[in-house]
Amino acid sequence: MRIGIIGAGQMARALGGGWAAAGHEILIGGRTPRRAEELATAIGHGARAGGIRDAVGFGDVVLLAVPVPALPDVLRAAGDGAFDGRTVIDCTNAFVPDGSAGESLVLAEDAVAERIAASARGAHVVKAFNLCAAEVWESGNREYGGRRLVVPLCGDDPGALDRVGSLVRDLELRPAVAGGLHRARYLEATSVLVVGLWFAGVDAGAAFPPLEAAFAVPDGA
Amino acid sequence: MRIGIIGAGQMARALGGGWAAAGHEILIGGRTPRRAEELATAIGHGARAGGIRDAVGFGDVVLLAVPVPALPDVLRAAGDGAFDGRTVIDCTNAFVPDGSAGESLVLAEDAVAERIAASARGAHVVKAFNLCAAEVWESGNREYGGRRLVVPLCGDDPGALDRVGSLVRDLELRPAVAGGLHRARYLEATSVLVVGLWFAGVDAGAAFPPLEAAFAVPDGA
Repeated sequence: MRIGIIGAGQMARALGGGWAAAGHEILIGGRTPRRAEELATAIGHGARAGGIRDAVGFGDVVLLAVPVPALPDVLRAAGDGAFDGRTVIDCTNAFVPDGSAGESLVLAEDAVAERIAASARGAHVVKAFNLCAAEVWESGNREYGGRRLVVPLCGDDPGALDRVGSLVRDLELRPAVAGGLHRARYLEATSVLVVGLWFAGVDAGAAFPPLEAAFAVPDGA
Repeated sequence: MRIGIIGAGQMARALGGGWAAAGHEILIGGRTPRRAEELATAIGHGARAGGIRDAVGFGDVVLLAVPVPALPDVLRAAGDGAFDGRTVIDCTNAFVPDGSAGESLVLAEDAVAERIAASARGAHVVKAFNLCAAEVWESGNREYGGRRLVVPLCGDDPGALDRVGSLVRDLELRPAVAGGLHRARYLEATSVLVVGLWFAGVDAGAAFPPLEAAFAVPDGA
């Protein structure tokens, strides 16, 4: 697949590196040309660098891997209609410092993926990869406690969900469709909750029983 | 502790039954007197039944365990100022059917706990116990994969958080403060995401790496 990646930070490196190693063609579109070049070189496997318009024009799939405040400029730089018909992966979280004491982060807005879909005309937006830090996607660990790491996806276009699901599997992760794009806001909220618990030293995953225990007693028993 | 429970359904039975067995005094305040009586009898350990005002007046801690649409009537029935200074546990989720195909539930509103705090004057609201079904709290299983089940709590009053944390431990579960009441909306969103995945047959917990893996590679490595 041809994948355009907008951004040259940790998420771009972690996901782009994995996809390049899996045989996909990568074009890193950077806001800073030098950083895009450096990342493309670091990724290797023929990965190339260019500008934002290059990455959007190149990709069957475009990964948005920039901080949320940069999104409006990036979408504008791509040009009107540039995303039409393309699968766009949104892995961002609108984290900002929580003003109150003892807490880490809150969301600056409650539905980033839906806003992207409203701005990027014709894009098939899929929210994915926002629950874990780049380090996790880069680490090479794919199973914990005998369970393959699950990547929930939210999106409205079946083809786009298939395409992203296939890219999730190419990273040896397990895709799980978690509903339409109107549910992406739940993924965003879950991320800020879970990261807050992790920062506080709590094993957030321990709040979720395994599937076989989640409905332990039949209804009405 | 004296615990007033408003509601006579599965959550009231699961949590009230556990707390009664742990030695707490329980008063079930029902909207339907017969159901409250039946539940108090089923719980045993001296649990009593009464009306909504009785439960609120009785409890150092009051558990709201009714469906979200019933909350306004219940808060009104308690009487003005009835919650002043009391610890109120909100375990509810504003689940409604998702209109779109293939999906289960969405949230009818995005911040139930904050609305309760705004309505119940003087209450110290703590969101808790909303991530798992009543069956889980009732099942007797407290550890999965060697990890004790974590119950995240959101609330603003330190004394109320301590009190609810102690009640979590009395059920042999592990409390984890997840921030102020303004973060309870993240708990609510997480619940609808996770339940949706469970309904779809996905092991939602597998989306969250264990704590030691959540930041697997040092920043900047």
